[in-house]
Amino acid sequence: MPAFFNEYTQIPRSVRGLDGAPEWPRLRALVGNIQDARVLDLGCGLGWFSRWARKHGAAQSVYGFDISENMLARAREMTGPEYEAVIYERADLEELELHPEIFDFAYSSLALHYLPTEALRRILAQLFGALTPGGRFVFSIEHPVLTAPADAFWKRDEEGRVFWPLNQYWKEGLRVTYWLAPGVRKYHRTVETYLSLLLEAGFVLTAFKESWDNMDFNPKLEEKADSHRPYFLLIAVQKPK
Amino acid sequence: MPAFFNEYTQIPRSVRGLDGAPEWPRLRALVGNIQDARVLDLGCGLGWFSRWARKHGAAQSVYGFDISENMLARAREMTGPEYEAVIYERADLEELELHPEIFDFAYSSLALHYLPTEALRRILAQLFGALTPGGRFVFSIEHPVLTAPADAFWKRDEEGRVFWPLNQYWKEGLRVTYWLAPGVRKYHRTVETYLSLLLEAGFVLTAFKESWDNMDFNPKLEEKADSHRPYFLLIAVQKPK
Repeated sequence: MPAFFNEYTQIPRSVRGLDGAPEWPRLRALVGNIQDARVLDLGCGLGWFSRWARKHGAAQSVYGFDISENMLARAREMTGPEYEAVIYERADLEELELHPEIFDFAYSSLALHYLPTEALRRILAQLFGALTPGGRFVFSIEHPVLTAPADAFWKRDEEGRVFWPLNQYWKEGLRVTYWLAPGVRKYHRTVETYLSLLLEAGFVLTAFKESWDNMDFNPKLEEKADSHRPYFLLIAVQKPK
Repeated sequence: MPAFFNEYTQIPRSVRGLDGAPEWPRLRALVGNIQDARVLDLGCGLGWFSRWARKHGAAQSVYGFDISENMLARAREMTGPEYEAVIYERADLEELELHPEIFDFAYSSLALHYLPTEALRRILAQLFGALTPGGRFVFSIEHPVLTAPADAFWKRDEEGRVFWPLNQYWKEGLRVTYWLAPGVRKYHRTVETYLSLLLEAGFVLTAFKESWDNMDFNPKLEEKADSHRPYFLLIAVQKPK
């Protein structure tokens, strides 16, 4: 999808990196201390987190995996020689095989909602195996309340109140949406399904956060619309020691 | 609220007990084995669960606490001599003090969303202390997606699709609603807040379920409206061994 890629490289989180992402302060708090950790970045995109991790204490090496060659090429361009041992590799998360206990910390930003449920179950099992005991996994996804609706746009009622028209919450599966370009395919799952898959894989929940602080004012809706429904879901889990 | 109490005693879950509650099969699965457990039932209402627990292996004694004298009087009437050592006591969950490590299992059905957040934080700390190591707590609440909206009624869009008008999700606090009677006071909190309070108290999450299987057909809306948004939240946690 070259149209998607071109648009994607122009949004704030692509241009400004982590500081262009409103959820980053909360996500960074969940990442915590990664001193000397061997780090995996699932769906690394332009590599902003992989580089940040290397700068903030991650051990050699940081591995960033993504399915898009375009993304990886751009990520490599942006990774100067000062980022020693940040390695970008093409990988389809639906098929990725990982060696046991080779990472101390894994991260994934806004990638896992592109996977069907069976593929998510599979990669979580792989990841659980690939983490060392006590290893942590921090990730963000689009919140199920965001991905569920048939008509996922803000509405306003007769009294002028903004609302989010939630429906088909239990209808899990493919949602084809327009995001930067038409035909973006993502998968809706309930919060129950996400948490159940994590527990089933053996992880222990350590944090569960919805969206971010300081919601933006939406000039079109003339209010902080995002305060009306959860937007992203940020989760931290740990493999038992 | 005598009007509320009169109405309450006539709904299916009051008349038929646990089998009149659509979420009971999933909740029962979370309750699991309570053989010889000392059981606490927070907000026991008419005592259906307290009696069920005694019949299904709970040790002497089962303690049911509720704030309503009406409820407790009716609960005692319904508790024949065959339910040895089921004890109902009046208690305000906002002030309840519990001795350390005196219960193995705690349960609460649709009660905790009537507590303000600081009171919930307090009772969770009490409960954590009152459970033995490895002790479990299983509870249900109204789902935050249900409690959030300013206008919490099903709507239908121009194309005839049923939806739930979600808004003010981040506006935590009091919601005064009509449920069986006017002026029912409940407290909205995000899913994040519920899970964060549990983790903060020291609990480990073991299950997270939304609503129930086999959604009812809603004749007025001519479809299974409850499949469009989460209704209840069922959570199981454990005190570490």
